[in-house]
Amino acid sequence: MTMQHDLVSVESLSAADVMNLIHLAHAFKAGASLTPVRPTYAMNLFFENSTRTHTSFEMAEKRLGMQVLSFDAGHSSVTKGESLLDTLKTIQAIGVDIAVVRHPENGFYQAVLDAQLTMGLANAGDGSGQHPSQSLLDMMTIYEEFGRFEGLTVGIVGDLAHSRVARSNMMLLTRLGARVIFGGPAAWYPADFATYGPHVEIDALVAQVDVMMLLRVQHERLTAETETTFEAGNYHNDYGLTCERAARLNPNAIIMHPAPVNRGVEMASELVECAQSRIFPQMTNGMYMRMAILTEMLLAQGLMNPTDVEALR
Amino acid sequence: MTMQHDLVSVESLSAADVMNLIHLAHAFKAGASLTPVRPTYAMNLFFENSTRTHTSFEMAEKRLGMQVLSFDAGHSSVTKGESLLDTLKTIQAIGVDIAVVRHPENGFYQAVLDAQLTMGLANAGDGSGQHPSQSLLDMMTIYEEFGRFEGLTVGIVGDLAHSRVARSNMMLLTRLGARVIFGGPAAWYPADFATYGPHVEIDALVAQVDVMMLLRVQHERLTAETETTFEAGNYHNDYGLTCERAARLNPNAIIMHPAPVNRGVEMASELVECAQSRIFPQMTNGMYMRMAILTEMLLAQGLMNPTDVEALR
Amino acid sequence: MTMQHDLVSVESLSAADVMNLIHLAHAFKAGASLTPVRPTYAMNLFFENSTRTHTSFEMAEKRLGMQVLSFDAGHSSVTKGESLLDTLKTIQAIGVDIAVVRHPENGFYQAVLDAQLTMGLANAGDGSGQHPSQSLLDMMTIYEEFGRFEGLTVGIVGDLAHSRVARSNMMLLTRLGARVIFGGPAAWYPADFATYGPHVEIDALVAQVDVMMLLRVQHERLTAETETTFEAGNYHNDYGLTCERAARLNPNAIIMHPAPVNRGVEMASELVECAQSRIFPQMTNGMYMRMAILTEMLLAQGLMNPTDVEALR
Repeated sequence: MTMQHDLVSVESLSAADVMNLIHLAHAFKAGASLTPVRPTYAMNLFFENSTRTHTSFEMAEKRLGMQVLSFDAGHSSVTKGESLLDTLKTIQAIGVDIAVVRHPENGFYQAVLDAQLTMGLANAGDGSGQHPSQSLLDMMTIYEEFGRFEGLTVGIVGDLAHSRVARSNMMLLTRLGARVIFGGPAAWYPADFATYGPHVEIDALVAQVDVMMLLRVQHERLTAETETTFEAGNYHNDYGLTCERAARLNPNAIIMHPAPVNRGVEMASELVECAQSRIFPQMTNGMYMRMAILTEMLLAQGLMNPTDVEALR
Repeated sequence: MTMQHDLVSVESLSAADVMNLIHLAHAFKAGASLTPVRPTYAMNLFFENSTRTHTSFEMAEKRLGMQVLSFDAGHSSVTKGESLLDTLKTIQAIGVDIAVVRHPENGFYQAVLDAQLTMGLANAGDGSGQHPSQSLLDMMTIYEEFGRFEGLTVGIVGDLAHSRVARSNMMLLTRLGARVIFGGPAAWYPADFATYGPHVEIDALVAQVDVMMLLRVQHERLTAETETTFEAGNYHNDYGLTCERAARLNPNAIIMHPAPVNRGVEMASELVECAQSRIFPQMTNGMYMRMAILTEMLLAQGLMNPTDVEALR
Repeated sequence: MTMQHDLVSVESLSAADVMNLIHLAHAFKAGASLTPVRPTYAMNLFFENSTRTHTSFEMAEKRLGMQVLSFDAGHSSVTKGESLLDTLKTIQAIGVDIAVVRHPENGFYQAVLDAQLTMGLANAGDGSGQHPSQSLLDMMTIYEEFGRFEGLTVGIVGDLAHSRVARSNMMLLTRLGARVIFGGPAAWYPADFATYGPHVEIDALVAQVDVMMLLRVQHERLTAETETTFEAGNYHNDYGLTCERAARLNPNAIIMHPAPVNRGVEMASELVECAQSRIFPQMTNGMYMRMAILTEMLLAQGLMNPTDVEALR
């Protein structure tokens, strides 16, 4: 595979790259372990709130034997007006090997890539842009279930316009040979999504999918105007996975959600842990996928033994 | 002893359980060390401010060789409306072995116990409910001093109604054979405390006790109305441990306080580190007691070697 | 050298002490490593925002094999009115070996020294008082460049009155034999600085210096009145290191800044990483200097092997 010095978008990943990462993540899940060739240091810089992604990266770092330095955006020099790029150059000068960054600004990473840091950069979510580690864990979860992507139909339903998860997933899924269809309010279906798949009525969609992928309705991103249009109860009836719709899913279909779930909005609360749900397994897979991502990033810096990594791919 | 998968309340602890924990904590204090059978991961989720309890648990985790994952309630997905239970299920899915939780809601842990997580849960304080680790370190401190509980009189004085420390301690002390008496404003003496001990005037109380246990007047929990009634200066004169009252304590009596102390309110500032005070030793003991608690919790999950633990009890 | 149980001000450091610390820091930079004689615990208590100093200390602690305990001023018991001294006594009772403290109050450390803690204290910046670790990394950077202090002229330019960096540096530089001259608004040149060096017009100053040391214009410390007087654009033209002034520097002169830089205020943005700039090397040196400082502090507590340390000095 192309060794990843940085992972900022799924656009740089070939189908073979994804499969290599899935195999490596599965090796970790099966109990494999790797350690860098010298003490290595990670910093997770989250400028948006997170439990899952932040904890998952931190756990992956620790399981790889990396040391994790603390960072609190609200107490950093960013509050003194320092730019993100200057902050990253600073922590690189201090000796950090890998920075994991979540930031509300779409494409924040471009300026960082242009600066050609020696430190590696992982994008843990940029605005409504990309969320590559989430997308890769989703691919791992689907592959674990079906052993293939070809011939699968994946329905992605919800707040498409604001969803970096939808954006990364439609790219990887089509690259891997799956068919993507979209659901949710038609007004939330962005024009550029049409290249990846059609918009389908939710009741028609549920009957067609192997994977029912729901997105969080991100209240905090919606304008006040939009919120009044789609009141929680209405959203659930009009676009959500109700128990009635879930009963019409293919018995082998799985339900996915990047979480946190708004119970009773995008899906019925009782479905979150139902037999077809893979929501908590997604979180478990996420930690192993992030171990795989970090391993490739460390390898690209010469901080992992290539033979050791190759043995697990 | 009953191995503790979770420690949420002192109600589940028999006198023998407490003595076993005290012996284990003393073994750690005397220099013993234990390490889990595989890498283990703790997360401390504090939804209320804390220095002592938070630092004490974190230190105990590190001394047991556990890895500690960071958590900031204000930057977590709880801010996106995620429930505490979903947050705990999430970190369990990611691989956390033990969660230590402080939360303002009384009995927050009940829903967690009902969900039967594989991860262990330690209650680091719930509202005005329970504070089992504080209570156990208090028992350790008293036992260290007197070598027994039978025949001792312990005076608990202060904001009883809001105090999870008072609630946990009155339960354990009576279970262990000590006599409990209460002091402070009569209006702050809850009806259900009468089962555990009488309310006594402070000047009568000081002459009777072996242990003078003061509680913090929690300004932040009092209503504005109550605050005007008990102005700091008046509280000290009417209900506090003044130097005059301290002089009337039994010479072998000890002074305890869960801290932080409001100097000059519940006790005179100069008494905080006087010869009879055990306030800082309580903090030292707290770290060893939390090592003992975590050890039992790890053992209950099969993450400590039973023979190693047994050798220290 | 005098072993440093605490490092709170440069006033306690002789020229020989500084040289010893520089040699030790260089040994670490050249790859040397040291480990304490038993597990040791550090806590970084920052009551003012910081990326550089906080990360640098944390990295230094981890590179020395210390365990680092988390501390968040905003979620600590300080919010319940606990004093800094009581907080420090608390973490000492829990087992912390070294506390690194940044605090807005000038001389906050005096009460701590008076209390004679067994735990070591490093001042990471007190108000407009002292910033010893920053000053020592600056000395290391200058010595690395010139191999001496005697005969050098160092210009310190900017918000002198509010700058703990200026205050610590003028003391150490003169002690080590360098000549100090000051620039910036005359109103910002405090009376007590005259003992250390004269105030010089910026255009005259640039022609004389071997080291051009710029200070951050600390908007957040200036009164509204002062801010209107020195608007950013004017400050740059009147007192800043413009490209034109930089061209008139001695070709061997270096540019230093404690960072974060207000690009376009105290210096032109394009100079931050120019060939003469040592701003990012300062950050790298800072981490090694903090390893040296912590090593001496651990040694003073008997927590480092004296022979091992001596071999690196």
